[in-house]
Amino acid sequence: MTHHVTAMLDSYPKDLGGVDKQKLAACIQSCFECAQTCTACADACLGEDMVADLVKCIRTNLDCADICATTGSILSRRTGYDANITRSVLDACRATCKACADECGQHAGMHEHCRVCAEACRKCEKACQDLLSALG
Amino acid sequence: MTHHVTAMLDSYPKDLGGVDKQKLAACIQSCFECAQTCTACADACLGEDMVADLVKCIRTNLDCADICATTGSILSRRTGYDANITRSVLDACRATCKACADECGQHAGMHEHCRVCAEACRKCEKACQDLLSALG
Amino acid sequence: MTHHVTAMLDSYPKDLGGVDKQKLAACIQSCFECAQTCTACADACLGEDMVADLVKCIRTNLDCADICATTGSILSRRTGYDANITRSVLDACRATCKACADECGQHAGMHEHCRVCAEACRKCEKACQDLLSALG
Amino acid sequence: MTHHVTAMLDSYPKDLGGVDKQKLAACIQSCFECAQTCTACADACLGEDMVADLVKCIRTNLDCADICATTGSILSRRTGYDANITRSVLDACRATCKACADECGQHAGMHEHCRVCAEACRKCEKACQDLLSALG
Repeated sequence: MTHHVTAMLDSYPKDLGGVDKQKLAACIQSCFECAQTCTACADACLGEDMVADLVKCIRTNLDCADICATTGSILSRRTGYDANITRSVLDACRATCKACADECGQHAGMHEHCRVCAEACRKCEKACQDLLSALG
Repeated sequence: MTHHVTAMLDSYPKDLGGVDKQKLAACIQSCFECAQTCTACADACLGEDMVADLVKCIRTNLDCADICATTGSILSRRTGYDANITRSVLDACRATCKACADECGQHAGMHEHCRVCAEACRKCEKACQDLLSALG
Repeated sequence: MTHHVTAMLDSYPKDLGGVDKQKLAACIQSCFECAQTCTACADACLGEDMVADLVKCIRTNLDCADICATTGSILSRRTGYDANITRSVLDACRATCKACADECGQHAGMHEHCRVCAEACRKCEKACQDLLSALG
Repeated sequence: MTHHVTAMLDSYPKDLGGVDKQKLAACIQSCFECAQTCTACADACLGEDMVADLVKCIRTNLDCADICATTGSILSRRTGYDANITRSVLDACRATCKACADECGQHAGMHEHCRVCAEACRKCEKACQDLLSALG
């Protein structure tokens, strides 16, 4: 599932600096998946007849898509690594994924797209947390 | 591989309007994969001792990452579909993926990350072309 | 207004290759302004009681924000210039700005944010067209 | 300078919830300016003959451009406001702008683009800090 992410980490020309490569790959993959899923969930909410009840969900989806794409990109870069940037962005991504999982989770019984999206957010929140813990 | 993309298309609340769902899912997935791969390839090039020989490659990677992320997001939206926007963005994405595949292809023998990246760009170029053809 | 954009073009270390610097700076600036304005307009539409009547407007705003941000970034890069990429992305940006200006224009009488946004989209559409013409 | 940002905040249909509108507008504007400037600085560094000495600068510029664009977009949204998301993203943006200002500042004597970019990063770092303080 994380084939291309792993292939790129494996071909990085310098040392990866002792990072847990499996947790890094899982986090990058989760961020890109969550960005796509949140973008699609915002749009699916927009397609619902009851869109007026879903405006907070749409907004949180848009925020989550943005920070996940940014976090996935920053984690994909290994040259000139900066632990402070990595930690603060992972922390923002984790907080936003948690907020989005909570919000989508409230509509998961009624809207399948919110159920799938809450799952993707929860997975990404955990992947950010796992990587943060591994960074020490 | 395209599990979450397909799950979101399947849970879209309205009709998808006769689009070829498999080609659409493949194109969305290829766009996000290519965005990640190009971001990582730009960084791997930056990590090479011979970075001075790779500046055009880095620049094209950055452009390709940007347009792929945008195209993947636009394709993920189905509400208020506009064929003109879809076609022109797919066309720009296809052209940029071709340019990036050609550029990375020139370094594929020397740098494994460029080989993997050229492959991702070629796959995304083809997915854009296939979707454009299916749109009629 | 385009002070920082111009300052960066002026400090570019190599020749800018005969591009019309004023039109380039105006287009970069318009793209970033339009990205911000469309992001804010999507959100303002989401804040309207009649959000259900504005779903196509929100969707087009999101597409327009994405392609404008990408185009503004690609135009900001001058190293390893590729005319094909530039033209195809400018063309997609122009088409999307036109679609968004038309859509927002329909709500401009009722919603001030749509009036301001239609203006930003029209300005960006023209800046893309002007730069495309200057590129020959 | 922040004309279009302010025009959009002024036309937001609901109450802005007691936020300091001037500090909010200044921060949104600084984020988008910094995103453009960092994108251009990464490219100008790539255009330098001594690019090999600037790889950490390029990488930090790319990170800073990403988080600034994301923060500017999230701040532009007012519907369904979430203080936790706002604070954590502002914090990541501030940390990254500081890191980028420090890195570009080291090359400011030699490269005018790094001088201009360090200034934009410092301005954005301060705007994020000011808004964080105002949020309480």
